[in-house]
Amino acid sequence: MKRLFAFAAAALMLASCAQKTAVTSELVKSMSSPDGQLTMSFYMTSEGTPQYSLKFADKDVILPSSLGYELRGNLKAQNLVVNSDVVDKLDNDPSLPFNVGFIVESIDTCSFDEVWTPVWGEEDQIRNHYNEMVVNLIQVDGASVNTVMAQADANNGNDSESALEGKRMSIRFRLFDDGLGFRYEFPSQKSLTYFVIKEELSEFKMAGDHTAYWIPGDYDTEEYQYTQCRLTEIAQNFSKALNRNDSQTPFSPNGVQTSLQLKTDDGLYINLHEAACVNYGTMHLLLDPKTLTFVSHVTPEANGWKGYMQSPRTSPWRTIQVTDDARKQLASRLVLNLNEPCALDDVSWIHPTKYMGVWWEMIAGKSSWNYTDELPTIDLETVDYTQTTPNGRHGATNENVRKYIDFAAANGFDAVLVEGWNIGWEDWANCNKDYVFDFLTPYPDFDIEALNAYAHSKGIKIVMHHESSSSVRNYERHMEAAYTLMNKYGYDAVKSGYVGDITTPGDHHYSQFMNNHYLYAITEAARHHIMVNAHEASRPTGLCRTYPNLIGNESARGTEYQAFGGTRPNHVTILPFTRLNGGPMDFTPGIFEQNLEAWCGNKSHVNCTIANQLGLYLTMYSPLQMAADTPEHYAEHMDAFQFIKDVAADWSETRYIEAEPNDYLIVARRPKQATLTGSAAAFSKGHDTWFLGGVTDEQARSFTVALDFLTPGKTYEATIYADATDANYETNTQAYTIEKRMVTSADSLDVFMAPGGGFAVSFLAK
Amino acid sequence: MKRLFAFAAAALMLASCAQKTAVTSELVKSMSSPDGQLTMSFYMTSEGTPQYSLKFADKDVILPSSLGYELRGNLKAQNLVVNSDVVDKLDNDPSLPFNVGFIVESIDTCSFDEVWTPVWGEEDQIRNHYNEMVVNLIQVDGASVNTVMAQADANNGNDSESALEGKRMSIRFRLFDDGLGFRYEFPSQKSLTYFVIKEELSEFKMAGDHTAYWIPGDYDTEEYQYTQCRLTEIAQNFSKALNRNDSQTPFSPNGVQTSLQLKTDDGLYINLHEAACVNYGTMHLLLDPKTLTFVSHVTPEANGWKGYMQSPRTSPWRTIQVTDDARKQLASRLVLNLNEPCALDDVSWIHPTKYMGVWWEMIAGKSSWNYTDELPTIDLETVDYTQTTPNGRHGATNENVRKYIDFAAANGFDAVLVEGWNIGWEDWANCNKDYVFDFLTPYPDFDIEALNAYAHSKGIKIVMHHESSSSVRNYERHMEAAYTLMNKYGYDAVKSGYVGDITTPGDHHYSQFMNNHYLYAITEAARHHIMVNAHEASRPTGLCRTYPNLIGNESARGTEYQAFGGTRPNHVTILPFTRLNGGPMDFTPGIFEQNLEAWCGNKSHVNCTIANQLGLYLTMYSPLQMAADTPEHYAEHMDAFQFIKDVAADWSETRYIEAEPNDYLIVARRPKQATLTGSAAAFSKGHDTWFLGGVTDEQARSFTVALDFLTPGKTYEATIYADATDANYETNTQAYTIEKRMVTSADSLDVFMAPGGGFAVSFLAK
Repeated sequence: MKRLFAFAAAALMLASCAQKTAVTSELVKSMSSPDGQLTMSFYMTSEGTPQYSLKFADKDVILPSSLGYELRGNLKAQNLVVNSDVVDKLDNDPSLPFNVGFIVESIDTCSFDEVWTPVWGEEDQIRNHYNEMVVNLIQVDGASVNTVMAQADANNGNDSESALEGKRMSIRFRLFDDGLGFRYEFPSQKSLTYFVIKEELSEFKMAGDHTAYWIPGDYDTEEYQYTQCRLTEIAQNFSKALNRNDSQTPFSPNGVQTSLQLKTDDGLYINLHEAACVNYGTMHLLLDPKTLTFVSHVTPEANGWKGYMQSPRTSPWRTIQVTDDARKQLASRLVLNLNEPCALDDVSWIHPTKYMGVWWEMIAGKSSWNYTDELPTIDLETVDYTQTTPNGRHGATNENVRKYIDFAAANGFDAVLVEGWNIGWEDWANCNKDYVFDFLTPYPDFDIEALNAYAHSKGIKIVMHHESSSSVRNYERHMEAAYTLMNKYGYDAVKSGYVGDITTPGDHHYSQFMNNHYLYAITEAARHHIMVNAHEASRPTGLCRTYPNLIGNESARGTEYQAFGGTRPNHVTILPFTRLNGGPMDFTPGIFEQNLEAWCGNKSHVNCTIANQLGLYLTMYSPLQMAADTPEHYAEHMDAFQFIKDVAADWSETRYIEAEPNDYLIVARRPKQATLTGSAAAFSKGHDTWFLGGVTDEQARSFTVALDFLTPGKTYEATIYADATDANYETNTQAYTIEKRMVTSADSLDVFMAPGGGFAVSFLAK
Repeated sequence: MKRLFAFAAAALMLASCAQKTAVTSELVKSMSSPDGQLTMSFYMTSEGTPQYSLKFADKDVILPSSLGYELRGNLKAQNLVVNSDVVDKLDNDPSLPFNVGFIVESIDTCSFDEVWTPVWGEEDQIRNHYNEMVVNLIQVDGASVNTVMAQADANNGNDSESALEGKRMSIRFRLFDDGLGFRYEFPSQKSLTYFVIKEELSEFKMAGDHTAYWIPGDYDTEEYQYTQCRLTEIAQNFSKALNRNDSQTPFSPNGVQTSLQLKTDDGLYINLHEAACVNYGTMHLLLDPKTLTFVSHVTPEANGWKGYMQSPRTSPWRTIQVTDDARKQLASRLVLNLNEPCALDDVSWIHPTKYMGVWWEMIAGKSSWNYTDELPTIDLETVDYTQTTPNGRHGATNENVRKYIDFAAANGFDAVLVEGWNIGWEDWANCNKDYVFDFLTPYPDFDIEALNAYAHSKGIKIVMHHESSSSVRNYERHMEAAYTLMNKYGYDAVKSGYVGDITTPGDHHYSQFMNNHYLYAITEAARHHIMVNAHEASRPTGLCRTYPNLIGNESARGTEYQAFGGTRPNHVTILPFTRLNGGPMDFTPGIFEQNLEAWCGNKSHVNCTIANQLGLYLTMYSPLQMAADTPEHYAEHMDAFQFIKDVAADWSETRYIEAEPNDYLIVARRPKQATLTGSAAAFSKGHDTWFLGGVTDEQARSFTVALDFLTPGKTYEATIYADATDANYETNTQAYTIEKRMVTSADSLDVFMAPGGGFAVSFLAK
């Protein structure tokens, strides 16, 4: 067996001899990041609790923080007791502490350095470079400590299997130049086979009362605006941070979601998130404001447990990104690196996509998803829509869809999303309805065969829409037939939705049970060569590396809220630090008409300028980019629309030029020529191109951007889409300027962004 | 509109003027059963609560009992309140009483009389004859009572649509000669579309402290032995009525299951059950011992609600069977009659089946379902059984299955069940395991193609086995492929299982969510022309009339418990009154070797005689009859085994000769010649045949049975399989006599049944 480390013996002695003294902590081993700037240390306490800490140079990032679990012990005990009033299951759910009583059996270390190629992304290649420490732990109960030590002594230097008895768990730490990841690993073992998590007890003890950019912890929605305040001020701001959502379950006024962006007073940018959340509930963070310590808070299952486990199994990675520059946080690929490599053998059918959609007009209220208004309820098994009176506002009609197809084709898009095409939209979310959609049957005014043929004849794909209404069992029951229908008619992408409370009674959007569903939908789609863009699903944790057909998620407050009361301009300046840390967002930018009331009577105002909307195509990275407004609105500003036509959705190189969370962001990107299509390909014509874009919050800002990212020696035609000097997200949203100028890498560009504004630039090498 | 009845006005006046006086009840309308013996009355109380009562001649069966619901009101209210400690959803789940404030808008009555033909059953034809009363109710709130009455007056005699506003519910009563059924109906209406049941409040107010034959109310199992005691003694006997089960959730010491058999001191047999439980949780009964009133207690969903409803929708039927003779209860087809007619267009592929199985040897512990013992856990995605060490006890091997096929074919059976054929049995139930089986992949020692070909060459079908392990989502995900595999290899029947806690977190076996699953499995199977025999599913409520491919259920303590500690002999004398009231049971009779310890070391003793086991083929009606013991054990008693070979499983005519719940039962049946197969067909050779059988409890009993059911004028060879005079279920189980005698319908037969014994007779017309 591997040699027992001396510190293990020391820790055990402490544990067995001095139970009433204070808990002490002893350093076991440290390691540094490849560049030496970060230091991670591992400790064991006198109670046998594993701990870790993290430093950036000499600055504390995570103070010594405990790790482990509380499990549900004695799983098979069912001592039914009946008294005169009630029947109880007594002692059926005792706690099994799995964060104390550990000894370190061995520690393995290694270094790793590779470069991998994403199927799509912000750059052609990603470096995955870390030092690793794996701490192999055994939990022994107090009574057997002496036995354990005697066995350990007897086996010292012996290469045979360990004679130590107890439950085993390893903690794997990976330290990158831009942060730390760790996860729990439960090896195959007879003493821990199937078990239930009562709570994961991973601590993140912060070194100061940092500034946090947070949204409320919630089991069912992430569609909140961000609040910026000190850690100790979160609870007092919690109530006003809650806006109404179709399904929401906040759990504590000190509960926040990840990815959580933090900033220290001495200039560190810290981000807490997770990577590779597979077969596990989504993690939130619960703050103890007195100790400034976050502890993991896993989304519960319907019965309150925090997850069902089988060894061998690992937890998701818990990630702590830390840099001294906000731009480095945005450039960090730590979360992707901690995910498994691509699991799909053939990825040739996966392609970045620019699309339009029969969508915003329903969101804004100008048209409807549903076909009729006259039935109190719908029973899909018996309803005959041809016998109902249409409401005259249905959006997904043959005529209207053709209009979008025509416009999208004329302007070089790849696809058109159509929502409300299938029967059942008269009553859907939050009806507790099981058989809410069949995902197969179109409304009478949507000719699925003819419309697809028409679209294909013009080089356009229709994007399928599967709104599950969170009736997840129903969706799974129809999934195979629904994907097969897509294959039949030539759909290759689906936008799926999970609006409203999960209809599996008691379940939540971010539970292990639901996370398993989302991944099932992705892997089943992959079998059918279908790309998935899932809305209202759990926020991404980098799984798109492993399953690159997951080309988008919503999982945050998107553009739609501009029609649901409006969103503050700072929202788009924080999302890249938080929501986008785990994967791309189908944010649906490109709203050109901000005055919804004049258009369709919706009293919400879209809080942005047109230039801001153009900037989003750079700042909100996604391989799936929508031009979300209507053909009519774009027709009024075809000069500005030209940027949306020209911009790419897949990149060979990305440079974060300026960034400060919740304030502003400027980014430059070089398209991946090989995946350019339609009008973006036409713009490039095979020449070198770059794009530059920025957004700001409520404040106007000016920057001088050095163009040193351009290829030296080449001259580019820069087309600059900017806010007019009097532009404003509230009062003057459509005031923009367009200027063309020849530039080289030696030049710099002065850019102005109005309040709630932004800018965008295309560079075409001549 | 239909005229408002005067009593409604009277009731309303009472409700509005005299709130502090005692609640009074006023008779609205009565009706009689077709034969005039039963009288059902409908009342409205001064609080607007509907009530009903039931009389058998002049004897009270149900005293005036209230009806209605408590609903979850204000479904869309989400008033999130955050204080310093917690986040609450306040007032999100207020109660909406739906059992008061009703007025009667109209009452419809009709009579119905038909004869229908079951696909299989105890008789060729079933008469469905009842008088019906539909009470149409409107719930109006107090404030609008005057308005309602003014509107009603204004509309009196007017044929236009009702101007009454309020939530509508109808109660449909059907009164048969053998009992009453009623259900709630929620018509399509804009003021009640989707709603949630907090509890159904159907009362059954008993007229005396009757004798009850009951098992504990439980959300997850019915596998209990019966207790016989007075209603007021249930609670004190509850604790000892609970035996251990893999999954069990008793909810109250006054909670019992249906079908609940009762007997009054003045000789009435009353049975409370339900019919057509579709899209609704299974009902239990909760007794108030002070008032001797049962109230419905619906199995909760995982979140505690009692069901999700959409109008138009009906509740299941609540049934009260009442006769003055135990035999009439057994002959009652009230539950079947209250179910919908057959929903399948083609039933040609459904056939009664006699089968053997590779099953009892695993149940008893002689062999195993699993293939290997060496892996701590199984991951179906990675396990390679060819690399594991077999445990040498696997039951479903090619060799062993062939042995059963050979024996079954040689003795004229239709099919052989094989359990443990598919990978995953190393860890299954109660592991909280999601991907527990794939239902597709055989163990290395089970050649699915060769064994099916071998079986088919001998006229035998293999019965598929799908043990879901209660991982229901996993089963549904694999269902289409699993049924397709069955079609590919020629399986036409599946035994499905739901052992252990439901893995959908928090869910219970008898919830609406699970009941929907069971029916989904049945209807999907029907699409594949597959018959279903579901074990551990909800106890049947007559759905086999509508879906006759549901040829069996377990849903009670079956023969397997004889190997799990043993079962008292009275068990088989009460099951026909209770469990079988809703549909057939796959009880798996036919155990010839009661000494399990001598056979395989199992310390349980099988508490029956061989003659008792033969009698069960008559007393435990099922179109699916197993010979559950092993070929070896049958080979030792081929003379007695002859009866199992000869007996039919589908009947043209049934006569209940003697019966007393929990004591004894004798029944005669005439086979349906058209569906006879194998050795049963060989026995009949087209001649008139009858079968007679009986069982008793721990007491020896003798009866003289008149043979007047035989066709007059014909002479039959009777083969009489009887307990020897010294036979006994504990000490002398294999002592039987076989006698042949020529008889006619004018004869009678003296039959003796030893303690825990029984008898069986075949009659073959010469």
